Amino acid sequence: MTAAPSNPAYGALTTEGNSTNIAWHHTSVDRAAWAQQRSHRSAILWFTGLSGAGKSTLANAVNAALFAQGLACYVLDGDNIRHGLCKDLGFSDADREENIRRIGEVAKLFVDAGVVALTAFVSPFKADRDKVRALVPTGDFIEIHCAADLDVCEQRDTKGLYAKARAGQIKEFTGISSPYEAPEAPELRVDTGSQSLEQGVAQVLAYLQAKGIIAAAN
Amino acid sequence: MTAAPSNPAYGALTTEGNSTNIAWHHTSVDRAAWAQQRSHRSAILWFTGLSGAGKSTLANAVNAALFAQGLACYVLDGDNIRHGLCKDLGFSDADREENIRRIGEVAKLFVDAGVVALTAFVSPFKADRDKVRALVPTGDFIEIHCAADLDVCEQRDTKGLYAKARAGQIKEFTGISSPYEAPEAPELRVDTGSQSLEQGVAQVLAYLQAKGIIAAAN
Repeated sequence: MTAAPSNPAYGALTTEGNSTNIAWHHTSVDRAAWAQQRSHRSAILWFTGLSGAGKSTLANAVNAALFAQGLACYVLDGDNIRHGLCKDLGFSDADREENIRRIGEVAKLFVDAGVVALTAFVSPFKADRDKVRALVPTGDFIEIHCAADLDVCEQRDTKGLYAKARAGQIKEFTGISSPYEAPEAPELRVDTGSQSLEQGVAQVLAYLQAKGIIAAAN
Repeated sequence: MTAAPSNPAYGALTTEGNSTNIAWHHTSVDRAAWAQQRSHRSAILWFTGLSGAGKSTLANAVNAALFAQGLACYVLDGDNIRHGLCKDLGFSDADREENIRRIGEVAKLFVDAGVVALTAFVSPFKADRDKVRALVPTGDFIEIHCAADLDVCEQRDTKGLYAKARAGQIKEFTGISSPYEAPEAPELRVDTGSQSLEQGVAQVLAYLQAKGIIAAAN
């Protein structure tokens, strides 16, 4: 390897995965600068749960509440993101893993930009979620289990997917033909099966306030 | 295909690439809401040019200027992003194309979040840049050619890469062993070979003001 270049804006050359000869660029506006300017911290709010458990609904409602308080926030949605960043991926185990990996990396970029990143994915596998957790400092990954029983989710069948899965039209459908590994010790568990949306939002906001990520309510 | 589900928060089921059975989720906080709250529009500022042309330097300086004005902005840097989202990619033509595609999709997400996304990549191929341009509405993709002559860039050799390329240690190095397709009609061309950084920043800010993306200077 060559010696580190003399330009102080560039770090030493490193090797990461298949990307060789890349130098970490230290930007002048960092996360701490954003936190100071915006008076709130950034973090990943990772909503996980069965299809129909209400992940997107809760994430978007929390997002709207944060927006209303003037905070920087954004929802990365499993359905939305597959139209773009991950449209090359299917639903095999490998593709699901890569899907979650990319989302985790994008969420990390938003956190770096000082934005609260809310993600709403089934993300059924503990190992994949833990990999995202490991991407960011302790306390920045907030796992929120949207806990609704399978029969409740199937009865809602928000997108008509359970019916298709039961009819054998969708392979490896979580809860039906593929496992969901519920978080053992999530930062939050929200009972999205019986609680109201308002209760869920209040629970998440209270957690963020308790952890000093957002300011306490007046 | 099934009929559109009755829940108004979900769109009709569609097929996109390899992702089937996905429904577009309409979030309640959209780009227009952010623009109204923040008093600036979002856009992609796509800095392109040879290695050593000063893309990252200019992008970060513009970013710092926007930050200082209280605007939401973020730099997606070629070097940085390859440590995370694209660490599975190398430098073959196919991998370079996928790298740019993913960056474009991520930049689009930032734009959707109301954030000015500044990207600093060599992005040597016109076709790849034009694909990103096509991702967003007209006027949202601002191509900024950091125009510095090859000999100037090679003399700077900020990261010591030209020396390695000349020594045959890097294959397909843009400008040496792989072509750079300069933009024919970029929104902006900044002479990063001879102008000062301050002149470049002023040129970009003036463009953003003229297009109404940021407020005019007082």
